Amino acid sequence: MKKSIAIDMDETVADTLSRHIEWYQQHFSVTLNKENMRGHRIYDVVPEAHLTTVRQFPHHPDFFKGLAIFDDAAEVIKELSQSYDIYFASAAMEYPSSFAAKYDWLKKHFPFISEMNYIFCGYKGMLNCDYLIDDSSRHIDVFSGQGYLFDAPHNQNETQYKRVCNTNQII
Amino acid sequence: MKKSIAIDMDETVADTLSRHIEWYQQHFSVTLNKENMRGHRIYDVVPEAHLTTVRQFPHHPDFFKGLAIFDDAAEVIKELSQSYDIYFASAAMEYPSSFAAKYDWLKKHFPFISEMNYIFCGYKGMLNCDYLIDDSSRHIDVFSGQGYLFDAPHNQNETQYKRVCNTNQII
Repeated sequence: MKKSIAIDMDETVADTLSRHIEWYQQHFSVTLNKENMRGHRIYDVVPEAHLTTVRQFPHHPDFFKGLAIFDDAAEVIKELSQSYDIYFASAAMEYPSSFAAKYDWLKKHFPFISEMNYIFCGYKGMLNCDYLIDDSSRHIDVFSGQGYLFDAPHNQNETQYKRVCNTNQII
Repeated sequence: MKKSIAIDMDETVADTLSRHIEWYQQHFSVTLNKENMRGHRIYDVVPEAHLTTVRQFPHHPDFFKGLAIFDDAAEVIKELSQSYDIYFASAAMEYPSSFAAKYDWLKKHFPFISEMNYIFCGYKGMLNCDYLIDDSSRHIDVFSGQGYLFDAPHNQNETQYKRVCNTNQII
């Protein structure tokens, strides 16, 4: 029986941070620099006065549409799918207006993974998979299998996790 | 630590079959009788000529809106939630246009269960819960914990499963 890998979407295969920066620029005419966001989420670096607006961005049904895919993600996951059962596990319940965009995005970029292997959830402790690759340590903390922290600007100071620094390192 | 129960939606807490019968009546002016559907899904009992249309019903975004909730489901699950972690696990990936209706329905009828405990998936073998209550034996077959078949007309001939005959029996 193949072992199973659950792969997060935002900031693991989809470049959600760039969308955040793009919308922030459009709304406030300020360009955020990813280099300055090391160890911080976007909510930590914008002025207090912008926070309510920025927190609303991901609740817009267009926010998750057409996100860029990280380099090599499709090729790497296609290769992995030969030897592992691949699931995509997104904490989409945090942004219920994102369901359609997330589903369409997965269908477009990973046509070789059945939609029966998509999981839109909240709490990732309920995943029965062998491995989880996720940029959020809070999901790895509750996962019952072996978690790997996917490198992202916001998690640079989290040193207690096994880390994959880019998509190719997953292999 | 509390044990966890994953509860299916359609035909376990939500009366999806009545919606099917209602839409079938509206489209074809024929009233199906649940008593005649014992051991059969709706797709088994309608004429071949109607099948394509009937199979499309659940793909309409309104199909899952405002479904009736089964008797006592809210009260029973509220009581269970005192002693168990409750998850709702729906194979919603089969009907991606159902996401919004399913989310809204759960929020309305089970406001005491966090949306972080909703799971929209396909394959229920990836659920890490102690129990699963589901009307579809194919989900119980792949579930790693203890499954209970929730009584529904279509599953009357499936005798090899532990069965709960109504919502109160879950307790």
